Amino acid sequence: MKSPTTFVLFLFFLFFLVSSAYPGMRRQHYPCKNLVFYFHDVIYNGKNAANATSAIVGAPQWGNLTILANQFHFGNIAVFDDPITLDNNFHSTPVGRAQGMYFYDTKNTFTAWLGFSFVLNSAQHKGTINFIGADPIMVKSRDISVVGGTGDFFMHRGIATIMTDSYEGDVYFRLRVNIKFYECW
Amino acid sequence: MKSPTTFVLFLFFLFFLVSSAYPGMRRQHYPCKNLVFYFHDVIYNGKNAANATSAIVGAPQWGNLTILANQFHFGNIAVFDDPITLDNNFHSTPVGRAQGMYFYDTKNTFTAWLGFSFVLNSAQHKGTINFIGADPIMVKSRDISVVGGTGDFFMHRGIATIMTDSYEGDVYFRLRVNIKFYECW
Amino acid sequence: MKSPTTFVLFLFFLFFLVSSAYPGMRRQHYPCKNLVFYFHDVIYNGKNAANATSAIVGAPQWGNLTILANQFHFGNIAVFDDPITLDNNFHSTPVGRAQGMYFYDTKNTFTAWLGFSFVLNSAQHKGTINFIGADPIMVKSRDISVVGGTGDFFMHRGIATIMTDSYEGDVYFRLRVNIKFYECW
Repeated sequence: MKSPTTFVLFLFFLFFLVSSAYPGMRRQHYPCKNLVFYFHDVIYNGKNAANATSAIVGAPQWGNLTILANQFHFGNIAVFDDPITLDNNFHSTPVGRAQGMYFYDTKNTFTAWLGFSFVLNSAQHKGTINFIGADPIMVKSRDISVVGGTGDFFMHRGIATIMTDSYEGDVYFRLRVNIKFYECW
Repeated sequence: MKSPTTFVLFLFFLFFLVSSAYPGMRRQHYPCKNLVFYFHDVIYNGKNAANATSAIVGAPQWGNLTILANQFHFGNIAVFDDPITLDNNFHSTPVGRAQGMYFYDTKNTFTAWLGFSFVLNSAQHKGTINFIGADPIMVKSRDISVVGGTGDFFMHRGIATIMTDSYEGDVYFRLRVNIKFYECW
Repeated sequence: MKSPTTFVLFLFFLFFLVSSAYPGMRRQHYPCKNLVFYFHDVIYNGKNAANATSAIVGAPQWGNLTILANQFHFGNIAVFDDPITLDNNFHSTPVGRAQGMYFYDTKNTFTAWLGFSFVLNSAQHKGTINFIGADPIMVKSRDISVVGGTGDFFMHRGIATIMTDSYEGDVYFRLRVNIKFYECW
């Protein structure tokens, strides 16, 4: 080596080669984008057609399509088109729609599985964010995967932390979603 | 520094360290692979059992399983196994099957949500491609996420741009899908 | 260049710049984590309510919710909450639950589509793993995508190789899942 500087450079370089060979080692665990939204679900119960934003579309043999089934709603599938707001007020101007499905998938507690998209169309954000994951509803804070995005969220990946912000019986619930993107492109 | 060359090298290196620390900064936004396919959906309507490639398997309380429901088909879930072709001819030799589900999820316009796979088995391509995303059908060109792949598409990610290429009433539609992979492995 | 060493360094660096510009070229195709699990599905058939871990919740017009439909079960959707074990014994202590759905999506052979999560909670693993993909059941070994994870599996991606380890008629089946993560964070 010609000089200490070159040597240090070389060491850095070696480290870099190694860390690059094991990509898991060098990734950051802090978000490149961090967003908070609320969305609001009003389940159709046979009487609230005008306000409902979701409906039961699948049920087990012991269930039906207007009342969530026994056994912790196991087997009920709901399709939804819920308004997304920036604060927890159902009447705030929506910045987009949460569109997709959830189904209840446990017989001995309230647990759901989610597959849905945020379709955002506001001055701040235009694009979609795609989510899937298990939602153990009774846990205060639970994580699902952000598996992709389009538009402003082109190719993004991350974690969405969901909290039940409020609910009224089986008819209304509001979720707070903290979307942390760790891969931003 | 010993020489201008080493200095330039060092600058490059610094840039590289920085860009590596913020992976979003150095990703390319042009595809590493770019493919176009068509797929063809014939919905079972009670009379076309021989030709149908999809069927309604979920409906809201106001719907049924042979006619798409009122309110823009909100709540209808369809399962499909559609032929994939390289051109827009339903009778061309399929290169694979598009298998999965879609459901209509809005009450005031035609919007669907998609979860499906391309299962490709041809001289050109062997493997699967997995998709999810929102499909606002009335928009000419819409993007969903390619969230993974297997075989020739091992670990791929990207964006699929969907266009409705043709449709006949509620029974037949044909989609043109432009799959742009940005992560190819 | 001042010396052969610097020159070699420079060549490495060039190579690295190039390989970095085409990220597909430098990724490893061996797993950063490799796990094997079994999960066990007991489908509700109208008589086994106490033991059933899954239920039919969607069916085509020609089907119902207690017997899997004609035409290779095309159109049947099942929701499941299956125990995950480390060996192939249904009675081993579960290390977590496989929660999600599958639906049969072909009329001329047994093929399914899967969307589910592993919710792991054991001394070894705490976190969730999210999967989607096509499952051509009659093929001995088939690959689906691991599209994300949380907890111990934060942001992981990979491939899950599924094999049908055992089955009893239409009521019980056991899957062996080899999860190979290629992106580990």
